[in-house]
Amino acid sequence: MAEIDTPYLLIDIPVAVAQYRRIAAAFPGTPVYYAVKANPEPLLVRELVAAGCHFDVASRNEVDLCLSAGAPPATLSFGNTIKKSDDIAYAYGKGVRVFAFDSLGEVEKLAEHAPGATVICRVLASSQGARWPLSRKFGCAPEMAIDLIRWAARHGLDPAGICFHVGSQQLDPARWEPSIADAALLYAKLRSEGIALRLLNCGGGFPVDYLAPCPPILAYADAIAAAVDRHFGTARPELMIEPGRYIAAPCGVLHTEVVLVSRKSYADEPRWVYLDVGRFGGLAETEDEAIRYRMTTPYDGTRTGPVILAGPTCDSVDILYQNTTYDLPLALRPGDQVRIHGTGAYTATYASVGFNGFPPLRTIVRGR
Amino acid sequence: MAEIDTPYLLIDIPVAVAQYRRIAAAFPGTPVYYAVKANPEPLLVRELVAAGCHFDVASRNEVDLCLSAGAPPATLSFGNTIKKSDDIAYAYGKGVRVFAFDSLGEVEKLAEHAPGATVICRVLASSQGARWPLSRKFGCAPEMAIDLIRWAARHGLDPAGICFHVGSQQLDPARWEPSIADAALLYAKLRSEGIALRLLNCGGGFPVDYLAPCPPILAYADAIAAAVDRHFGTARPELMIEPGRYIAAPCGVLHTEVVLVSRKSYADEPRWVYLDVGRFGGLAETEDEAIRYRMTTPYDGTRTGPVILAGPTCDSVDILYQNTTYDLPLALRPGDQVRIHGTGAYTATYASVGFNGFPPLRTIVRGR
Repeated sequence: MAEIDTPYLLIDIPVAVAQYRRIAAAFPGTPVYYAVKANPEPLLVRELVAAGCHFDVASRNEVDLCLSAGAPPATLSFGNTIKKSDDIAYAYGKGVRVFAFDSLGEVEKLAEHAPGATVICRVLASSQGARWPLSRKFGCAPEMAIDLIRWAARHGLDPAGICFHVGSQQLDPARWEPSIADAALLYAKLRSEGIALRLLNCGGGFPVDYLAPCPPILAYADAIAAAVDRHFGTARPELMIEPGRYIAAPCGVLHTEVVLVSRKSYADEPRWVYLDVGRFGGLAETEDEAIRYRMTTPYDGTRTGPVILAGPTCDSVDILYQNTTYDLPLALRPGDQVRIHGTGAYTATYASVGFNGFPPLRTIVRGR
Repeated sequence: MAEIDTPYLLIDIPVAVAQYRRIAAAFPGTPVYYAVKANPEPLLVRELVAAGCHFDVASRNEVDLCLSAGAPPATLSFGNTIKKSDDIAYAYGKGVRVFAFDSLGEVEKLAEHAPGATVICRVLASSQGARWPLSRKFGCAPEMAIDLIRWAARHGLDPAGICFHVGSQQLDPARWEPSIADAALLYAKLRSEGIALRLLNCGGGFPVDYLAPCPPILAYADAIAAAVDRHFGTARPELMIEPGRYIAAPCGVLHTEVVLVSRKSYADEPRWVYLDVGRFGGLAETEDEAIRYRMTTPYDGTRTGPVILAGPTCDSVDILYQNTTYDLPLALRPGDQVRIHGTGAYTATYASVGFNGFPPLRTIVRGR
């Protein structure tokens, strides 16, 4: 494919489907909701529908995308806790019946625009240990969750359980247990009042290998199953999980070209290597160097030296890595191809519409 | 315009043209190169052409945009120091004759693909005092610049001078002087070798009022003129400047809607206010809360309380302000309009193509 102008993201759908099967097998009996925001490529969604996957959607457009790809509305969960009333009504009208919330304002909207819907309350969780940690933006404290679930039950909604998220690219399988323990207490308290929660949504966060390898998915499945047994005992809820990165990241390779190799002064040790893609072209997760991608070049195996990696725009924050040590071949020259691996998730959709006049990242799909 | 769905950016072209005239008047005799990346709206570029503005372009697409808007190629400067050879050749073929560089790799490309062109060497500058500081991504040390300018002169290029950039939204008018002083030494040294530099590009960085007011443009013009007199004396070079934000920011108002107002726990003081636009919808310069926009609501003048402001996506970094104190009316509810002022620069083009399924920010233009 050397004749195609870079940059472009090449995605290999069967790799993503294999990842889906791998995580589904690790969590037997647990429905897997693919977090569509990770990569909303229509063919990918279609193949995941065929494989039996469910879908976590964040917006009206993602509802439409999944339905167009053949997903039954019953397999969709509207997981964003920040929704316009119109978008709730739209999704409900299309048959979506599972919605997340984390505030009184949101559950009021759901009671009005999605009457009778199954609702899941998002509870704050620690994202310690995650490479892309979550803030307090989503979720509420457990004592507030209890009141909101009571409110939902009284107002004709079907509160099924809680959800939490331990942060994306979570490298510690033990980080789910504190939230599972909190959930068990919350479920027991509500059960004593006659509100029987039946579902525990353990969210996403399951990691993939980037520059450094991560624990295998079975380590996460085992840790979560053991924690649920330990804290819920015989009152075990059904589980659901929402992987995005785990399914999509490994299927993508970003094809880029070196635009310039330079030094800033005669004393400077690291070379600056400028690629034709940067933070505004799809590599937004390099913010604060959070996600550290693996790269390959035509000269791998030859002598290397340290580099600072940056994108092609005139924006000074468009630097990929300057604190993380990257070593690339000394032979690297303008025009050489550099491939960035594991870029199937959170890349193409992050690209800016045209900052500095650079067009958005194109995706090229390799199907079955 | 209440009937238009938010979010959208309303831009008022005459406001930008008035800003152009203001800065042109402050720097008499100095050509003003509008940094197109700030806002490449075609009608804005067309009106600036009519007003006599020149253009600083960052990519091939920006070259095309300016030429389509009627800009003569002689009024374009290709200011990005990171250019593919093809793009240099393309611009040169269209008649562009001024190019920036900061490395041997780039000046080699220019000698090959833009023979005889006027070239300007970017030198590192401190961006202390800037709200959007520049890194070492652009520019080289002065001693390297001297060698590169010699190289350019020997290889058929026309080295006209140097450029530097003190950081965007630079609040201190005195920050240009150190680079002007460095430049004077460099020009004197090269003059003694028979290379007569004639042009000094003082870049951009001229600030606008956001939440806090900034010094007037005349303070910058006076400080720069005085520094040039002081350091160059009678060997005063021609100047050029490259404002982007100064021209475009004041012409835009981002119209948004409150999606949700919530608290995370009963103990939490600040409310969370979620808008239908965030860091992935165009407000990228709120990264690290660098740019602090002024906001208005329908309830201004009524009782307020502290808020954390966030965008609508499922991404936890999509938070606008949590460390900067923003106070908004207690009356604010979902569905209420919030206007974000001074958003004409570095917004619409930063918007993601569709992260979380949210469409890019639309621009609505108000012409003459």
